[in-house]
Amino acid sequence: MYTVKAIKSLFLEYMEANKFELSPRELFEPVDYILQLGGKRLRPVLLLMSYNLYQEDIKAALPAAYAYEIFHNFSLVHDDIMDEAPIRRGKATIHQKYDINTGILSGDVMLIYAYKYLLDLEKKEAIPEILSIFTKVSTDVCIGQQYDINFETANQVAIEEYLKMIELKTAALIAGAMYSGALLAGATKVDCQNLYEFGLNIGTAFQLQDDILDTFGNAATFGKRIGGDIVQNKKTYLVLTALERANSAQKKQIEDLLSSHPIDEAGKIKEVTELFNELNIKELANKKRDEYHSRALKNLDSLAIDREKLTPLKMVAESLLQRVQ
Amino acid sequence: MYTVKAIKSLFLEYMEANKFELSPRELFEPVDYILQLGGKRLRPVLLLMSYNLYQEDIKAALPAAYAYEIFHNFSLVHDDIMDEAPIRRGKATIHQKYDINTGILSGDVMLIYAYKYLLDLEKKEAIPEILSIFTKVSTDVCIGQQYDINFETANQVAIEEYLKMIELKTAALIAGAMYSGALLAGATKVDCQNLYEFGLNIGTAFQLQDDILDTFGNAATFGKRIGGDIVQNKKTYLVLTALERANSAQKKQIEDLLSSHPIDEAGKIKEVTELFNELNIKELANKKRDEYHSRALKNLDSLAIDREKLTPLKMVAESLLQRVQ
Repeated sequence: MYTVKAIKSLFLEYMEANKFELSPRELFEPVDYILQLGGKRLRPVLLLMSYNLYQEDIKAALPAAYAYEIFHNFSLVHDDIMDEAPIRRGKATIHQKYDINTGILSGDVMLIYAYKYLLDLEKKEAIPEILSIFTKVSTDVCIGQQYDINFETANQVAIEEYLKMIELKTAALIAGAMYSGALLAGATKVDCQNLYEFGLNIGTAFQLQDDILDTFGNAATFGKRIGGDIVQNKKTYLVLTALERANSAQKKQIEDLLSSHPIDEAGKIKEVTELFNELNIKELANKKRDEYHSRALKNLDSLAIDREKLTPLKMVAESLLQRVQ
Repeated sequence: MYTVKAIKSLFLEYMEANKFELSPRELFEPVDYILQLGGKRLRPVLLLMSYNLYQEDIKAALPAAYAYEIFHNFSLVHDDIMDEAPIRRGKATIHQKYDINTGILSGDVMLIYAYKYLLDLEKKEAIPEILSIFTKVSTDVCIGQQYDINFETANQVAIEEYLKMIELKTAALIAGAMYSGALLAGATKVDCQNLYEFGLNIGTAFQLQDDILDTFGNAATFGKRIGGDIVQNKKTYLVLTALERANSAQKKQIEDLLSSHPIDEAGKIKEVTELFNELNIKELANKKRDEYHSRALKNLDSLAIDREKLTPLKMVAESLLQRVQ
């Protein structure tokens, strides 16, 4: 079996060998730009790890890993336009560096290239199912993004609706990557399905962790500004849980704060965080995240493979969810 | 064999039975909206006609026909955002009726659904090739759109570059539809390739015709404002041919006119049209269009099928290119 580090290097080598050095540059240079901004390469690494549970030589799965990374970046490019986000991974977003039209069109061609790489897979007999699962989860990502947009202006969002939204927007693609890796490696349908569920659970836990870190994280290690969600009045798991547990005075306070756009953003972040602390929100969110994490581990334990093979995946899951004290 | 009218009805019935009555409505209602604006349904009709050259029962090809129509409409939705076009087929464009974010996201899900319908085809063994050709021509459409954008600000555009652009942006998708219909019907590779070439040639002729009608057409039958391309300073085949044939005084006149945005648009249209007339541009453009039309007919004559089966396709080609007197 490959180490996680070796898998990531192999994937980065494959990306380097498959850069979008295509013409016209106006269309493809932005694709190279966004793909080279870095990031954890979580989806391709997980896809390859899933494959590697069943097969030694992971090279055959590299085009699928790349397809998932290209799709993920496509969704970032279009989401960043919709969110008017100027910065991604510390650098200008495509629509900021070039323009909105470039973001739209270069994004479109990325979505098409994700399919192109899946069609490049050597295991031709698996292609229809690989494409079906990809089509399903990429539709889920669009639906999740639509719910996310809807929630911005919704008066009320139920916690269950929020969890469904992050499952669609974030976890489904990770689930699709896990499923596809196993499928390409010839795993049984039951194992593929368990790995899909693992992806849903770990992806949801990962997004809950992101919600937690956005308020309670350490700026140095989080990589984003602490309190960004609060400033943007996002209805995160923390906010929805706080609203559910608040008494009427606290509820009014949260609602007032989270419909305001004060100049003193630090003051607002502090007030909301204090309310979260009063309501024990960090612990509740940690607990919910741990529930998903446990389910993910159970999904792994259901697989028809040797226990020790699961160690690297469990470590990756753990590293994604490092505890906030 | 089906008549063209019967094919179109069958396709419209299939569309009706496969409306995007999906949730969330914010995402899918715009898809239904744009698909129901009408239009010639040229790509699906041609795909089904291509299939019908080889097979009687065209139903098996309906999902592919729908995929091409969905993709075509996806490209209109995103192009209309890029062109800031408020009107499409006499109705508000999606970004105008809803907003730009809706146009982006509903467009994205349409592109994914085009693949989904191709994956729905019953002839599973054809799916990898059907998807490969679709991926190729949909990439061509993006590249063509990028060239079209580049040409807006380019100082010089060669006629050959313009013809290549319309081949990519307009003709490639028609070619892909022709190829796919024949492939699904079990035609030989040679016939598929000839039908692909037919699509490229007829698609290019069709776009040249559109350029001609935009200046020399009849407002009542053209359906768009006469002179729109001139007002927008578009570098059409007419303009590029005029620039090639003009003496230096005429060249300066054209260049000045086509970099101006006068309030008197009718005056500008009249002046440019007069220059075109001096330079015999309508005749030259008709001739170029007829060249492509002839090549398209030759492609049909190369097919390994009975001559009389070609009549409907030839009639459609002819009707697309009704002569401007």
